[in-house]
Amino acid sequence: MEVAAARERFGQARSSRLATVTANGAPHLVPICFVLTGDVVHSVVDGKPKRTARLQRLVNIEADPRVALLADHYEDADWNRLWWVRAEGRARVLEPDATEATEAVERLAARYAQYRTNRPAGPVLEVRVERWSGWAAAAG
Amino acid sequence: MEVAAARERFGQARSSRLATVTANGAPHLVPICFVLTGDVVHSVVDGKPKRTARLQRLVNIEADPRVALLADHYEDADWNRLWWVRAEGRARVLEPDATEATEAVERLAARYAQYRTNRPAGPVLEVRVERWSGWAAAAG
Repeated sequence: MEVAAARERFGQARSSRLATVTANGAPHLVPICFVLTGDVVHSVVDGKPKRTARLQRLVNIEADPRVALLADHYEDADWNRLWWVRAEGRARVLEPDATEATEAVERLAARYAQYRTNRPAGPVLEVRVERWSGWAAAAG
Repeated sequence: MEVAAARERFGQARSSRLATVTANGAPHLVPICFVLTGDVVHSVVDGKPKRTARLQRLVNIEADPRVALLADHYEDADWNRLWWVRAEGRARVLEPDATEATEAVERLAARYAQYRTNRPAGPVLEVRVERWSGWAAAAG
């Protein structure tokens, strides 16, 4: 899949998965909502109850900024409609009161109704995508 | 989410995502179809065109067996229905003619119609899950 097509499919997906690496080198994986602007992905830590103030994904990124994101489509009935797009890049954590963070939360709220009724107050994850790749079963 | 509930939700999911770590320590991520038997996940490399005979996921696992798998549910209209389950464990690659591999492909074919009409001939990925975790927005 060409880069432009991969970027477009990813940008239209409603959720994706974030892979990071722990301090001892094991992979870690969580689903995220996000907004794509150019080659930059933003996601915000929302208000769901969490066991720790510093989430594993944030701890991991501060130690090693390399991440992978995946958006994919699966349907049992027709494997000709399967596709996936992977974004690889480097992440950093924006503190909630940073201008870039509040702007990202605005864009996330424009995209997700739930963020408009319940504005997330947590830190923002920013990923600068360095490589897009993807696959689709059918050319169409 | 309790372990038994996490395992059950994961086992019923039709696809999941596999995170591995490359030789230089970066995360790698692909979607997979799978079958869960107890605490063991099997997935098979199917007949889609691939650029390399040895897929990145297999190369990664041979260097570092630690993997994470994620099944999740997203729907825009109702965030009370969101859930995810993560399985962390160790993977190994079974050669296609190994008895364990052919048995795993049988179970995969029982689960996916597409594998019955087009039996995959590639190596089988086996993950022994050591830790289940999960989250659901609603208790129900």
